[in-house]
Amino acid sequence: MIVLFTDFGSRGPYVGQMQAVLCREAPGVPVIDLFADAPVFDSKASAYLLAAYGAEFPAGSVFLCVVDPEVGSGRAPLIVKADGRWYVGPDNGLFAIAARRAAAAEAWEITWRPADLSASFHGRDLFAPVAARLALGEPPPGAPRAVPAEDWPDDLSEVIYIDGFGNAMTGLRAATLAENAVLRAGGRQLGRVGTFSDVAPGDVFWYDNANGLAEIAVNRGRAADLLDLTVGSAIEVEST
Amino acid sequence: MIVLFTDFGSRGPYVGQMQAVLCREAPGVPVIDLFADAPVFDSKASAYLLAAYGAEFPAGSVFLCVVDPEVGSGRAPLIVKADGRWYVGPDNGLFAIAARRAAAAEAWEITWRPADLSASFHGRDLFAPVAARLALGEPPPGAPRAVPAEDWPDDLSEVIYIDGFGNAMTGLRAATLAENAVLRAGGRQLGRVGTFSDVAPGDVFWYDNANGLAEIAVNRGRAADLLDLTVGSAIEVEST
Amino acid sequence: MIVLFTDFGSRGPYVGQMQAVLCREAPGVPVIDLFADAPVFDSKASAYLLAAYGAEFPAGSVFLCVVDPEVGSGRAPLIVKADGRWYVGPDNGLFAIAARRAAAAEAWEITWRPADLSASFHGRDLFAPVAARLALGEPPPGAPRAVPAEDWPDDLSEVIYIDGFGNAMTGLRAATLAENAVLRAGGRQLGRVGTFSDVAPGDVFWYDNANGLAEIAVNRGRAADLLDLTVGSAIEVEST
Repeated sequence: MIVLFTDFGSRGPYVGQMQAVLCREAPGVPVIDLFADAPVFDSKASAYLLAAYGAEFPAGSVFLCVVDPEVGSGRAPLIVKADGRWYVGPDNGLFAIAARRAAAAEAWEITWRPADLSASFHGRDLFAPVAARLALGEPPPGAPRAVPAEDWPDDLSEVIYIDGFGNAMTGLRAATLAENAVLRAGGRQLGRVGTFSDVAPGDVFWYDNANGLAEIAVNRGRAADLLDLTVGSAIEVEST
Repeated sequence: MIVLFTDFGSRGPYVGQMQAVLCREAPGVPVIDLFADAPVFDSKASAYLLAAYGAEFPAGSVFLCVVDPEVGSGRAPLIVKADGRWYVGPDNGLFAIAARRAAAAEAWEITWRPADLSASFHGRDLFAPVAARLALGEPPPGAPRAVPAEDWPDDLSEVIYIDGFGNAMTGLRAATLAENAVLRAGGRQLGRVGTFSDVAPGDVFWYDNANGLAEIAVNRGRAADLLDLTVGSAIEVEST
Repeated sequence: MIVLFTDFGSRGPYVGQMQAVLCREAPGVPVIDLFADAPVFDSKASAYLLAAYGAEFPAGSVFLCVVDPEVGSGRAPLIVKADGRWYVGPDNGLFAIAARRAAAAEAWEITWRPADLSASFHGRDLFAPVAARLALGEPPPGAPRAVPAEDWPDDLSEVIYIDGFGNAMTGLRAATLAENAVLRAGGRQLGRVGTFSDVAPGDVFWYDNANGLAEIAVNRGRAADLLDLTVGSAIEVEST
């Protein structure tokens, strides 16, 4: 299975153009569009999001990841294998958290180049063909290198994603927080509950979301609007 | 064929996460994303929308439906079979109109539970695996129960959906209205026409849309903006 | 491969309804959703967009194209074959630029009609079944006619599309412009650069995009917002 993780947005041709390449180069391999709205140009927030949402996919899955503001510059193209999952994309930290949390990780710099490589769309021209090869079981077309590492914390005390309901995901894994941890965000103190229906409509809270992240939410409301949260908003952890 | 009907919005990972489960549990079965923007948290409007848009799919189709604000509470998980089509989702009225309009309907409460069931995403953890089983021809993993019924009218005199062009679908089947019926919405009286190109650009009207609903529209314009309509806006039916 | 090119927007059931037809009528044929947000009701801008983005697909691809404001009127349904690619959709100029740029082109008026043809959704009822037949290798179900031509320029000096990043694509092929061509748009003179990372964040420029169009962009910014550009905004070409 090939899994797409990009900041292309829900509009435009770019996801479809990559799917067309995958369809030609790896016919019959299922392609899942996981995130098309990863934090734009933000490889740090995206790294925490990818680590949390990639973990539910089995070993052998290939993640084709494009959050790539430096495309066309000198940044290297990268393959990472972490706990059996393959990640293909730019060397900008995007895979650093997934690699750090893995029991085993390896990395390669992609040395293969296509006959035609555009300056601005390596997702289509370089990363998609490489993802297709990996999905077909071919070896990484590159040279071994150090696993990417960044001077980033194990968990990020910031909002990393706002979903369509206005829920604000943080870069904090709920399992790392005390059962009675209180989060402070947007000037409010937020207690932990099990899920939405445990509180009255309009109540704001945090909970352990379906992918293990601490998420700030409002029952039948939009937390991000209520608390004025955006990607990058700071979250403070207090214990009571 | 598995058909997705959700209120997840066009953003975020949730549709993809469900598709990934379906791909693993029912490999090779086509999955169609019909609505990702059903009326949010609104199982009543969604029920009329699903009944109208589900009817064009053949018997044997499996609808995986998630408009589920009470997820994690005591609401039951449900399977309905209506005119040969399968519906999987929460017991909140979402399938009541499709069942009422069917010549034959049965229902089951889902008793199967996955090893890991999150509190907030039964679409991925419970409903998707059940939809996969049904698509593969397995029997409903549950216990027979009464077909869901709600104290709702046969047709709903409200706007139930605004599409990307600004057209406002109502919960009224055009076939139930007199040929010369006049609809009143947003302070305007609207006559029936055949389709957009029958009137001048800018004219507002209603017509029998491609799925049999009375839909309020403007030729080359946005009816919802012009008449200030949203999901839930009342529609009055007058006859001249 | 069947490629979708529509102005339906990223919301609503219409893309899914067409995919369901394709899935039934041409099972196993891959379907790629290239553009769901082509310029609304604008067959002229769409024609330049389709010509630029269709060119990367191989001969034999079938483009199912719906930018069709006159649906239900007398406008003819059309098939065009240009350089081996098939185009199916309304006769409103949408295929005129792809045909003009092709070494060889043929056209047919679709004479086949489905048993049930709605007044407003020929994409589902007429064009999708025809696209399915062509994808299966069947002959065009219609009568030969003249290849569509419009009194439109070879390249269009206007913005034809704004992508999700705020980049403004023009209808000008970069290869037709001098290396040192200067574009004037939104009151600004814009020089050509290789790609985003060649300039400082915030700088505005034009470049040869990954599909050969002159595109106006800002490094890590939104050009359309900065220059107040929308589809149809005029672009002037100056040489220095």
